[in-house]
Order: sequence, then structure tokens, then C-alpha cells
Amino acid sequence: MARIVMKFGGTSVADVERIKRVAARVAAEVAAGNEVAVVVSAMAGVTNQLIEYTRAAARLCDLREYDAVVSSGENVTAGLLAVVLQDLGVAARSWQGWQIPMITDAAHGSARILRIDTAELERRLATGEVAVVAGFQGLEPERNRITTLGRGGSDTSAVALAAALRAERCDIYTDVDGVYTSDPRIVKGARKLDKITYEEMLEMASLGAKVLQTRSVEMAMKHGVRVQVRSSFEDLPGTLVVDEEEIVEQAVVSGVTYSRDEAKITLRSVPDQPGVAASIFGPLAEASINVDMIVQNISSEAKTTDLTFTVGRAEVERAVAELRRHAERIGYAELAAEQDVVKVSVIGVGMRSHAGVAQTMFGTLAEKGINIQVITTSEIKVSVLIAEEYLELALRSLHTAYGLDAA
Amino acid sequence: MARIVMKFGGTSVADVERIKRVAARVAAEVAAGNEVAVVVSAMAGVTNQLIEYTRAAARLCDLREYDAVVSSGENVTAGLLAVVLQDLGVAARSWQGWQIPMITDAAHGSARILRIDTAELERRLATGEVAVVAGFQGLEPERNRITTLGRGGSDTSAVALAAALRAERCDIYTDVDGVYTSDPRIVKGARKLDKITYEEMLEMASLGAKVLQTRSVEMAMKHGVRVQVRSSFEDLPGTLVVDEEEIVEQAVVSGVTYSRDEAKITLRSVPDQPGVAASIFGPLAEASINVDMIVQNISSEAKTTDLTFTVGRAEVERAVAELRRHAERIGYAELAAEQDVVKVSVIGVGMRSHAGVAQTMFGTLAEKGINIQVITTSEIKVSVLIAEEYLELALRSLHTAYGLDAA
Repeated sequence: MARIVMKFGGTSVADVERIKRVAARVAAEVAAGNEVAVVVSAMAGVTNQLIEYTRAAARLCDLREYDAVVSSGENVTAGLLAVVLQDLGVAARSWQGWQIPMITDAAHGSARILRIDTAELERRLATGEVAVVAGFQGLEPERNRITTLGRGGSDTSAVALAAALRAERCDIYTDVDGVYTSDPRIVKGARKLDKITYEEMLEMASLGAKVLQTRSVEMAMKHGVRVQVRSSFEDLPGTLVVDEEEIVEQAVVSGVTYSRDEAKITLRSVPDQPGVAASIFGPLAEASINVDMIVQNISSEAKTTDLTFTVGRAEVERAVAELRRHAERIGYAELAAEQDVVKVSVIGVGMRSHAGVAQTMFGTLAEKGINIQVITTSEIKVSVLIAEEYLELALRSLHTAYGLDAA
Repeated sequence: MARIVMKFGGTSVADVERIKRVAARVAAEVAAGNEVAVVVSAMAGVTNQLIEYTRAAARLCDLREYDAVVSSGENVTAGLLAVVLQDLGVAARSWQGWQIPMITDAAHGSARILRIDTAELERRLATGEVAVVAGFQGLEPERNRITTLGRGGSDTSAVALAAALRAERCDIYTDVDGVYTSDPRIVKGARKLDKITYEEMLEMASLGAKVLQTRSVEMAMKHGVRVQVRSSFEDLPGTLVVDEEEIVEQAVVSGVTYSRDEAKITLRSVPDQPGVAASIFGPLAEASINVDMIVQNISSEAKTTDLTFTVGRAEVERAVAELRRHAERIGYAELAAEQDVVKVSVIGVGMRSHAGVAQTMFGTLAEKGINIQVITTSEIKVSVLIAEEYLELALRSLHTAYGLDAA
């Protein structure tokens, strides 16, 4: 017997028929002798509709009221799943954030979970009752107001609940059946990973793989919650996200990922003097524009430098406008923006103990005639910016070079 | 300066545009110096959709989960109205049933309000903040579960809140602009009443006028809450529902109402002996079939009697089936059911002190050649069952006979 948390997203509970399929999977875990808590999202489309209402209601929406409105979709799904479970003969009860309570801070719209009072839930789980928990929401106790956790918050609800309940596993049911070594739509030889470390999953999440919410992975890592990413539609094992120590044979590289959401901005002949970086990135930060990769080259002429960095594609126009507005203070000779670039990354905790990982990447790309525009590295990943037209070639070549292709 | 409660139904908040119109009316009351609490229903159609989900989910729906699901529509409207009010510069905050809390008993699906803790609401009303309260819902404190008050429950929420807040008035905004002496679609001379007593309103509500929920009128009467029925769409005074003492010149008859939802069942030659009524109405009660008017005639033959009664049209088939199933035990010679009947009622607290009201009714109908099939009376109303084809003629003649026509 084990205690597990199951989480189902919006497409898995999109209508009553799908909720019935979800209930059957929950019932199977109960029949196997497990104590089960289920976290659910709103039916697909509902939360967007509610957000649209709040936008139509006012130019600036009070976030406390925003939370009261947009949290209601999860309440509906939680109640309905409890009803269907009861109909299958499985004892079940729905729980809204304030009922548990799931205590958060007061950062409405993107609140952080502070603690979960699980005493009553645990008492009921022990009697065989399934707890169906509305995801994405919590309670700010000071003012007794509903909070929401921001986009993808139901993943975070599930992991936080699994941590509080000391659950053996947190199964995230989604429309992919696990985490792959690369995008199977591009790389034919891509394989589903049985296990992946928290660190790798975190890099993948922030590098474009949309399987899990970054914050939920951070929380799983912090509390040592074993997370399984698996398919809502097929009954197959998925990918376990676990601590490094649980993985016996760790590959040097676990995956090759990419992000198309990149734009490159280059400033030429910037005065090479203290304070110039601040004069560039200060205005961008104030305009809430996220800067990702940054490279500074020594220019051919003395006392000037070239500076290249990337921003999200949706933000490139605003970034250029900000830089033009501050052109005099920054003092660059030329500004160029380019959108047909992609970021390709190789990720693996194994590179901590293996030299030559970056070299393999650079060599492989060079061999195929692919020019590297920007490089950034961290302890467990190497990212390069290349022209978009080489994306598929780069992914396939790297996947083969690191020995990731399926046998 | 006064403290008032305003209530808006589903059609008045059917979309964001209408919610903005509601907000303008609320803002006008605030600008007039009033302390304002607003009770809102779900957007038109939303609650029915949620009920449909629960029906699709399971054959028998647990009422605690039913309440958790169907109460969510009001939360959305309350949050949105608060947002729009803030956008107009009016301080406002939404309140769900559990937040106030609005304490109810545990009769899920049709709970009764036991008490409302208004301390925090009153503190905020005093600062000029509008309280936007989700109608139709409450909190059962023992299990910490959401309850709903049953159909039309938002009227009851509003009246209960007005009582708890000792509000000067509870304005129920609806798609009619008040209570009329008769149905203006049929009776051209029908007039809007300025005032009507609780007792009369109660009779009208239970006799087919769908202006106010019966339970909300009972509660208003019990707590002496002055209720005003008025239009959501026009800014005109409506009809005040008040205590008899507030009405200086009380007409003998205040209104002539009707109900088409009637079916007549006659059992002929039933043994005239003790226990026979129980043998007939017992099985109907067990099948949850409401019986309204009952008349028992002495039959021409000795030791048998004829029995006539009415049920709702939707229930007549079930009623007949029940009576056939128990035919042997009841022992009737013949069973007849008729659906083309209507109930016409005259209502007025004035008839307590005036004789001859029933006689005027019978005389007027006889004059027009309308046969009366069944008669029932109470202290303040006389109802007759007649053939449906005479409905319009009967309403107009009675309206004139009691001097109700507009000058």
C-alpha cells in the first residue's frame, strides 16, 4: 500500500466523458490498495474564458477579485470528479483551497504555497476516501481571500500536496507520455526516458520543454518528491523525475532541447567602460523584458566592444524601442535585431564529471557547417544560438553524437 | 443616508455589458450616500449548465458535491461586479458564502439560512465599501461544506442579508417592473401596485406569479424587511412589499392571478368510510406528488362519494399511474383526469374585514356563463378551477368587478 497524488490537466478533464475516464484510473489506484489524492485543473478553455471576462470588466483588474473569479473553474471539476468516483462506488470528497486549507502568501495572481494543513485529509485518506483537490488555488489567511498560483499552478499544487502528505509518488497525467531525449516530431530516434534528475528537468522546463511547470520541479527537488510524467490516455509507465542518486547509470547527456522563442539583438561599438552594461540592461529590466544569453566581444577598434544578447520573440520590438530611446546614453554605433535564430541545448548532470561535452557539441555542429552565434553554459547544460534553418539538422546530429538514438 | 441591499438576477448579469449597467446603478446608490450590499445570481444559463454536468456525471449525485459545483457561477458574477465597480472608482469587495460566513443548516440543495455574521461587512460598509455577495449559497459549519439554497435562492440570500444588516430596504431587480393587479398581457387595465402586503405577495407567489420566491417573502415578513420589486432595465419605482400597517388605503382585493399549471383528477364512487382519504393521498405523498385543491361531494348513491383534486400538470401521469396501482385498495368505480383547466384566484387582505368578496366572484363568473369546477378559500384569497378556454374572460371580468381597472 502506498500513498500517491495524481494530477490531471485541463485537456484530461475537458468534459464529463473524460472526467469519467479519469475516475476509472483513480479507481484502479484505489483498487490496488493505494491512498489517493487527486489534483484537477479546470475543464480546458474555462480558465481562459474567465480571464477574458475579467479583461472585459475593467482596464486594470484588482488581483484579489481576479483570483476569486478565475479559481472557480477548478471547483467545478473537483466536485464533478468526486461525484463520478462515488458513482463508481469509490468514497470521495472534493476540497477547495480554503477548505483544506492550502495556505499561500498574499501575492495574488501568482501566490506561493506556504503550508498545507493535511490533518483532516490524512484522517480521511486512511479510511479509503479519495481527496479530490481543486488545483491552482489557495487561501491567503490574513484577509481570508482566495489566491491563485499562476499559469500551470495545478502542477505546483500537486507537488506541494505530495510533499505535505509525504506521498510515495506524484503522477502528473498529461497529453505526452513522458520526457523524451529530444522532440520526437523532429528526431526520429528520440527515446522516452525512464528517469531524469530534477536538475535536468528544471533545465528542460526553462529551455522550452512544456512538460512541467518550472516552479513545480523546483518544489519537487526541494522536498524530494518523486514526480512521474505520464499519459492521460494510455496506461503506460512514464518518466520518473527523481534525485540523481536514484539513477544508477547516468548518461552524460540526457536530452537535446530547443527553443524557437528567441530573438538576437546586437549593439556594435559600445564604449568599453564601467557602467555600460547597466546602461543597456537597466532600461530593459525596467520595461520587464527578460534578457537571456549575453555575450560581450572585444571589438577590433580600441575602447569599444560589441554586445549581443537574446530576448523572447514577442518582446523584441519593445526591446529595440527601449534601446533606441536610450541610444544617446548607451552610445552604440549600430543596432541590429534578428529573429530567425533558435537556441539548441544539451542537458545532462553527467557533464559535471565528464570533460569534452561542449567540445563534442561544437565539433558536431562545425562538421555540419552550422555557425554558432552565441554560447552559454551552466554546470549541466550547454546552449548555442544558431540560424533557425539548421534546427532539424543540429538536433539530429547532436542526438546521434551523444549516443541517444534508439537502438 | 440609508443602508440598502440590492439584488440582481441572472438575466440582469447575463454578460459583462449587463454587469456594467448593474454597476452603474449600484454606483448611483453609493453616490446618493447609501451604504450598499449587492447580492448577485450566476450569469443566465450558467447554473443550468452546471446542473446538467452533475446529471451527466452520475445517476445519483451526492448533494454536498452538487452544491460545490453549482455554487460556482455566483462566485464569478460577484468577482466581476466588484471589478467593474472598482473601475468606476467605487470601493468594492466580493464575498462568497463561506467568507462572510452565511451559516446554513446541512440540508444540501435546499439549505436554510440560520445566521449571518455581518460584523466585518458592517465595518466595511461604514467605510463606503460596497459588499458584493454571491447569492444562492452558504456554509454548513459542522463539515465546513458549501450549501445552496435551492431555486430562486438568491432572493432569499438578499432578504436574509437585509434582515441581518437591518437594511432600510431590499430592492429586488428583475425583468418586470413591479407587481401588477393582474397579468398585463391579458388584462389591458392591469395596474402596477405601489404597495402590497407580505401576505398578499405570499399568496401571489404560491399562486403562479413568479416575481419573488415564496421563501424569501416568508423571511421578509418574519423579519419585517421592506422589499421592493423593480425593473433592472428602467429607473422607476417598483412595488414595495410591506407590512399591512404601512398601507393606508387597503383595497378589498389587490390582484387577480391565475395558474395554468393545473390538472384535475376525479375519482367516482369511492366508499364513503373513514380512512379512504388516506388511502388516496398517502400513495401520492409517497411519490412526492403535491396535491392542491381537494373537494369531496356526497354522491347520489348511498355510502359512496366523489372526490376531485388538482395536481401540477407535469405530475398528472405519475399521479394517475399511482392511483391505478392502488385501485383495489382505494376501491373507486371510475378515474378521470383533465388537463384543460386553470386556477383563477382573487387575493386581498381586505377580505378579512369585507363580506361578499367570494359572492362577487361567483356572481361575476356566473354572469359570463363560466362554470366553477372546484372552489378553495383561505383568509385572504378565493380560488376557483375553471375550463382553460374561459381564462381571459374570467380575468378581465373579475378585474373590472373588483374595481381594479386603471382609471
